[in-house]
Amino acid sequence: MNEPRERTLGTLLFPEFELLDVFGPLEMFGNLPGAVRTLTVAEQSGAVTSAQGTRVIADYSLAQCPDLDLLLIPGGMGTRRDVENSALCEWIAARSAGAEIVMTVCTGTALLARTGVLDGHRATTNKMMFPWVSEQGPSVVWVREARWVEDGKFVTSSGVSAGTDMALAVIARLFGADVSERLAIVAEYEWQRDPSVDRFAAIHGLV
Amino acid sequence: MNEPRERTLGTLLFPEFELLDVFGPLEMFGNLPGAVRTLTVAEQSGAVTSAQGTRVIADYSLAQCPDLDLLLIPGGMGTRRDVENSALCEWIAARSAGAEIVMTVCTGTALLARTGVLDGHRATTNKMMFPWVSEQGPSVVWVREARWVEDGKFVTSSGVSAGTDMALAVIARLFGADVSERLAIVAEYEWQRDPSVDRFAAIHGLV
Repeated sequence: MNEPRERTLGTLLFPEFELLDVFGPLEMFGNLPGAVRTLTVAEQSGAVTSAQGTRVIADYSLAQCPDLDLLLIPGGMGTRRDVENSALCEWIAARSAGAEIVMTVCTGTALLARTGVLDGHRATTNKMMFPWVSEQGPSVVWVREARWVEDGKFVTSSGVSAGTDMALAVIARLFGADVSERLAIVAEYEWQRDPSVDRFAAIHGLV
Repeated sequence: MNEPRERTLGTLLFPEFELLDVFGPLEMFGNLPGAVRTLTVAEQSGAVTSAQGTRVIADYSLAQCPDLDLLLIPGGMGTRRDVENSALCEWIAARSAGAEIVMTVCTGTALLARTGVLDGHRATTNKMMFPWVSEQGPSVVWVREARWVEDGKFVTSSGVSAGTDMALAVIARLFGADVSERLAIVAEYEWQRDPSVDRFAAIHGLV
């Protein structure tokens, strides 16, 4: 038997990224050694300051980043600035074309929507920032009430902590639900398996 | 009226710390600007590699670390090594003495227990690693079934994701439950408010 190939997950960092958008998913994907290799990438390699102040190291610059099977785009206040960053958006569009699965968390969906690659696809985002994010992609089919949305290779999630449930759903798709269940138990995490459960859409007046 | 004082939260990093043990709590504490200032500290300042591979920057070395009101000790595979690290354990004991609140997540409780400061106090930890952690503090009153345990200044939590619920409980104690509720809603996080709810103790055969 051939060994299953190791997939490479690249997580995009930018100034003022939201910590849990990145580290909820990386807690799960990072505990699959041999199956998933994780790396971080930013405009320049080196330290990137999160929205909450903690600095995280980007392993690669955009230009030096290896081929990616999986791409994770977090949200955070920095997305307000970076939807206007054409170099970053062009990199996202190019890497999305080559990736097996592209994931966004929270306002990270704004960056992906801005590239145009989500046009005609179903997607969701942070419920508090929904009006602003949806303006970034008028041709996206926005889903107002969902913890996350899978539409082919694009998997977009609601605010911050929804990214962890999405990550486990993607891991279930790639490796089986029992793998996700085991990761959740080890992390003592109450995995929300149902993407339609979204209490926050009503809280923020979207439904 | 006087402005309420800003508290300083120091998060200890060490090689092979668990990502979500740190960044679940920091997602919450890091979104209280003016009320809580967060910093990271490790044996040496600079990059520290997590158990999942992502590198995070420690702002301060142990020796250079400012006074801390709040101390957060994460778990992770690195605790297996660092319970034997007397310099680190002495620093934890000294800083615990001066802190208003000392928090642990997961096997971070092993490091705190090893210093002796938890002796006679109620505490909990990761349910899968419970036997090993409890050996590190034979005089601690170990609670086998709890998402987290508050005993005076010591607040210890169960595995990985339990740290986020504990952080919101500590924020509620310091600033009021409505502040925690707001943070949870913004992060679209389903906050478990009841520290006695612990499905994982039974899964790991502790009850």
